[in-house]
Amino acid sequence: MSDVLSSEQGAALLKQMRDVLIITHKNPDGDTLGSGFGLWAALRQIGIRSKVVNEGKIADRFDFMTKPYAEQADTDFEPLFVVAVDTAATKLIGDSLCEKYGGRVDLCIDHHGSNETYAKNTVCDPASASTCEIIAEITELLGAELDMYIAKCVYTGLATDTGCFKYSNTTAKSHLLAARLIDIGVDFAELNRLFFETKSRQRAALEQMAVAGMEFAHDGKIAIITVTKDMLARAGCDPSDIEGITPISRTIEGVEVGVTMRELNNGNFKVSLRTVTVDAARICAMFGGGGHPRASGFECGGTAFDIKVATIKAIEKVLD
Amino acid sequence: MSDVLSSEQGAALLKQMRDVLIITHKNPDGDTLGSGFGLWAALRQIGIRSKVVNEGKIADRFDFMTKPYAEQADTDFEPLFVVAVDTAATKLIGDSLCEKYGGRVDLCIDHHGSNETYAKNTVCDPASASTCEIIAEITELLGAELDMYIAKCVYTGLATDTGCFKYSNTTAKSHLLAARLIDIGVDFAELNRLFFETKSRQRAALEQMAVAGMEFAHDGKIAIITVTKDMLARAGCDPSDIEGITPISRTIEGVEVGVTMRELNNGNFKVSLRTVTVDAARICAMFGGGGHPRASGFECGGTAFDIKVATIKAIEKVLD
Repeated sequence: MSDVLSSEQGAALLKQMRDVLIITHKNPDGDTLGSGFGLWAALRQIGIRSKVVNEGKIADRFDFMTKPYAEQADTDFEPLFVVAVDTAATKLIGDSLCEKYGGRVDLCIDHHGSNETYAKNTVCDPASASTCEIIAEITELLGAELDMYIAKCVYTGLATDTGCFKYSNTTAKSHLLAARLIDIGVDFAELNRLFFETKSRQRAALEQMAVAGMEFAHDGKIAIITVTKDMLARAGCDPSDIEGITPISRTIEGVEVGVTMRELNNGNFKVSLRTVTVDAARICAMFGGGGHPRASGFECGGTAFDIKVATIKAIEKVLD
Repeated sequence: MSDVLSSEQGAALLKQMRDVLIITHKNPDGDTLGSGFGLWAALRQIGIRSKVVNEGKIADRFDFMTKPYAEQADTDFEPLFVVAVDTAATKLIGDSLCEKYGGRVDLCIDHHGSNETYAKNTVCDPASASTCEIIAEITELLGAELDMYIAKCVYTGLATDTGCFKYSNTTAKSHLLAARLIDIGVDFAELNRLFFETKSRQRAALEQMAVAGMEFAHDGKIAIITVTKDMLARAGCDPSDIEGITPISRTIEGVEVGVTMRELNNGNFKVSLRTVTVDAARICAMFGGGGHPRASGFECGGTAFDIKVATIKAIEKVLD
């Protein structure tokens, strides 16, 4: 149902359009935001008006992207062309945006192998560590320049989706692009401090609670962290503070699968898996979720205990 | 007193030598070990016998370097030529090695701006994020091949000294080299898991104690973590487990200088500074220490309280 396009074809299509709406996934992370704002700036350079929308709060650490956008973007228009970035499925753009635009995404630019090709046209490269790497390519194919703003956006997605070049999704190409972005003058050390090394005292308190309550199953091969709404409240944390908690479970020696269960406002749980060798996406697919081989997630209703038991069972099936 | 050589000259000198002793700094980290074992393997390729020595335990996570060395190295010789790697000053090679070889280091290969040029010949490039980057260059200048073993050694120094490409010492050149190493086939994700993402339950317990006891000074701009011998014992930790604790103090929002004080077996304290903007090496120099602008340290006798007060005073002088 979707035409799969190369980056060249995607850029050629974009070039002909005007008044573009760019949708990122809900609870936006560095890659979807870097892709969205990077694309906005690239289109702006070649005289195409666009605006970026999303559901969920954008964390303060991304101010360097959102502030120039807020000052410079001309957003007073009805969109004629809808682009979704870093969004593997329509439901990931959030309920209200999905209702309004879910059926009319003209172009999806993504790097998830699980992309459902729901858009009329799809540019998807699962070999890219981040969607931002595709955005860098499209920027230049549009005839726009990788200026400092776009370079920062692209670095953001590149660094955050690879755990700063740590994870197996990193490629030689990711490093070559990083070298270019450093040559352009991106203050990567300051960005990385924002992304990876700055936590509020509240977040540090949440981390202590989470680690103190960590549970182990299957001979120490599975570690489970549970973060309840009550813990967030006691620590004085924002839900966005939890992002950095997710990788912790996998860092304990001997752990093959790290599970983080987070209670959502609607009472459901968001379950995130980080694995060392097994296919996390396959496990999450059993619960209607998905993602990457080493980092996937799903949302699930029920009691924390029941979800925990079901998740452990599913993991054990794949581990054994 | 020391001839400062280019990498080319350093390689040319090495090529003429035989029966080489390679000394790393004491309590060896990833960069000094990667440099030492990388150089051993490069010299071996061109038929020069060498052995690597150091003081202090080599952590298990570096088994992939030490095991092939233990199996293959011919170490039954009296050294004719002494090389020190990643060692800015003779005292850093440790007391007993310093006594034996401190005055007769023929070649030092290093990247510290604070290098004391104590060796007869010095190859030192402070623009390199790691000494391993210089070793990669010298490997090829020797006419040896960047094979898988050397590539892993080089990646080790590159990744560990840059916090996996996070810190300001990272350069475009570091990324270009990383791209080459990935093309060679280095399993960087597995290495990074060993370096950055695997902690024992003991280490996790130590971290909890350290964070729980964190103190703040100067309006939250200085954070101090103290790790005593007693804490190490209670957590069941090895002194090498503390390496990952040091960066934590700087990660709290608003902290400009993170201080980690660790009680040593001799009763002294090793004080490590991690800074956001101020010159850590300048502060540590006041106590006879040194290092890098954002990561330095010194050793100091006295009570924990007195050292803490003196350190805070010195930091305040630079902060104001």
